[in-house]
Amino acid sequence: METVLLNGDDVEANAQLDEMIDAVEEAFAAYARGDVQMPAKSYIDLPQYNGDFRSMPAYMDAGEWDAAAVKWVNVHPDNPTEHGLPTVLGTVIYSDLETAYPLSIMDGTVITEKRTGAAAAVATDYLAVEDATSLGLVGAGVQSYTQLEAIARVRPIEEVVVSDIDEERAERFVTAFEGRFDVRSGTIREAGHCDVLSTVTPLEEPIVGLADLGEQTHINAIGADAAGKHEIGDQVLRAAKLVIDDYEQCTHSGEINVPWSEGVLDDDDLYGELGDIVTGDQEARTEADGVTVFDSTGLAIQDVAAAHVVYERARESGDGYGFELVSSLATEPGEQVE
Amino acid sequence: METVLLNGDDVEANAQLDEMIDAVEEAFAAYARGDVQMPAKSYIDLPQYNGDFRSMPAYMDAGEWDAAAVKWVNVHPDNPTEHGLPTVLGTVIYSDLETAYPLSIMDGTVITEKRTGAAAAVATDYLAVEDATSLGLVGAGVQSYTQLEAIARVRPIEEVVVSDIDEERAERFVTAFEGRFDVRSGTIREAGHCDVLSTVTPLEEPIVGLADLGEQTHINAIGADAAGKHEIGDQVLRAAKLVIDDYEQCTHSGEINVPWSEGVLDDDDLYGELGDIVTGDQEARTEADGVTVFDSTGLAIQDVAAAHVVYERARESGDGYGFELVSSLATEPGEQVE
Repeated sequence: METVLLNGDDVEANAQLDEMIDAVEEAFAAYARGDVQMPAKSYIDLPQYNGDFRSMPAYMDAGEWDAAAVKWVNVHPDNPTEHGLPTVLGTVIYSDLETAYPLSIMDGTVITEKRTGAAAAVATDYLAVEDATSLGLVGAGVQSYTQLEAIARVRPIEEVVVSDIDEERAERFVTAFEGRFDVRSGTIREAGHCDVLSTVTPLEEPIVGLADLGEQTHINAIGADAAGKHEIGDQVLRAAKLVIDDYEQCTHSGEINVPWSEGVLDDDDLYGELGDIVTGDQEARTEADGVTVFDSTGLAIQDVAAAHVVYERARESGDGYGFELVSSLATEPGEQVE
Repeated sequence: METVLLNGDDVEANAQLDEMIDAVEEAFAAYARGDVQMPAKSYIDLPQYNGDFRSMPAYMDAGEWDAAAVKWVNVHPDNPTEHGLPTVLGTVIYSDLETAYPLSIMDGTVITEKRTGAAAAVATDYLAVEDATSLGLVGAGVQSYTQLEAIARVRPIEEVVVSDIDEERAERFVTAFEGRFDVRSGTIREAGHCDVLSTVTPLEEPIVGLADLGEQTHINAIGADAAGKHEIGDQVLRAAKLVIDDYEQCTHSGEINVPWSEGVLDDDDLYGELGDIVTGDQEARTEADGVTVFDSTGLAIQDVAAAHVVYERARESGDGYGFELVSSLATEPGEQVE
């Protein structure tokens, strides 16, 4: 019996985005129904290395399928400049439920990118105006690419405006997509006047105010993933129909964490969790809605859903390397291993 | 850059037991000094599969070296009879601290066996009589083999008595060791009158009472690893010098969890944690001591210490298979990935 090893390129090749958006949508629905087990992320902070590790185990039952995995992931901001590595690395162990056999070990970096884009697509599908055709991006790093790819699956995006203080980075983005979209570099205000806006920066001071936005812009607030991070102005958050992925995670480390800790936002400002909209327990965008915001912190069940899609696809494609990780040591019924 | 994959046989070949006992001893000392980060184990219970998953992340700083890893492990009691697999499987991701790069992925099943034996050896070294030469074992499963191998490193064990209700299992144990030790199958009382006794069963009703023990027997209570499990009689636990590996884990899932929840044992019955004995903050066995008990639940830092030994050894031996798990996708400074 072998464990299938999938490196970043294998994951990329098998991360079919439509399936992944569906699976992540099912994950949010399962969460709302209570059909998941998702212990809080465990953090290991290593200030002496300017980094941290996070352990994210979860199980989800979508009805048609269920799955469990753990993602071991980190944030090491010095990696790109000092080591030529991504800030965020990750490794996923995807396990059989019947026996716990490790079916696959896969690069978690690409999984993280894809499932984050998929969540924004799910939120956009429920919260953006039906006839949305334009997408703004604030921040032109790796995640901005996935945002465009994923959101273009749920709305017929034609026009794209990307805004980044690093003009070269913005230009690389434009070059990457100019064959497929009407894409240009622009100001935050130009990006914010698109039908959909995704913010993907690591900022701790808000840069998107009310005046930067169209009347019915839907915002995917992706960047904030730790206490102190904050991309969207408090006036926007208070005025918007505000949807979160998870109450605990968002109030502690999501887009809303700073105004929350300052008492500027409280329970009355929250519309609800995305899962409850997916199940229909709460309404999606209505005609009365203006600006909507989805605060995405990233749930372990999204990783499980993404890993499920990649593993099933890789089984069909035959991609990956089979390795006999589990020892063949003989065992006997009733033995006790602590 | 490659991640080194170590299967069960590779781990076995590189799990040098003396080094592992030293490393696990350093882990207990680091724990007592506060030089570890060890979030609580996260559990995912899957009664529909009669199994569970546990995520065990940790970091430890031994002074000379430090290390971080996560172990993803399970308990699936139907595995041996229904699937020909061990009840407990496990996978360890061992990471670089500077960059979080996954240095090695290794079979966690053998790691779990070895680090559990190593902890018993550390406890035996501090708590058994100095001139101990006999070891009793209750339960003859896989862990009993590791108990003997590890404990024989810290005391010159000559005589071994193994007790198991499955006489064939006991005989296999005897056959395995009869060239090296004066080993025989016997009753629980015969095993308990050895200088050291290790109990390695999954029982929920105590089977070792005061009359089964010598006056100064040291017991390693290994089997209990979940609420409801209980191998040693309450009278023994109350009379003994009672040492635990971790307060939270032991009171919830260790040997003491049942009498603890019933109010039969409380703080006054605990002598202390093994780490405080290793550092010298509390006394090891003294001449006045009778029976001593070490309640072992298994700490994530033991896995980190064991993985450290195996990884460093495997680097020297060249064992394992190098796999480029992390994708080579180009990244740039300042990019944002959630």
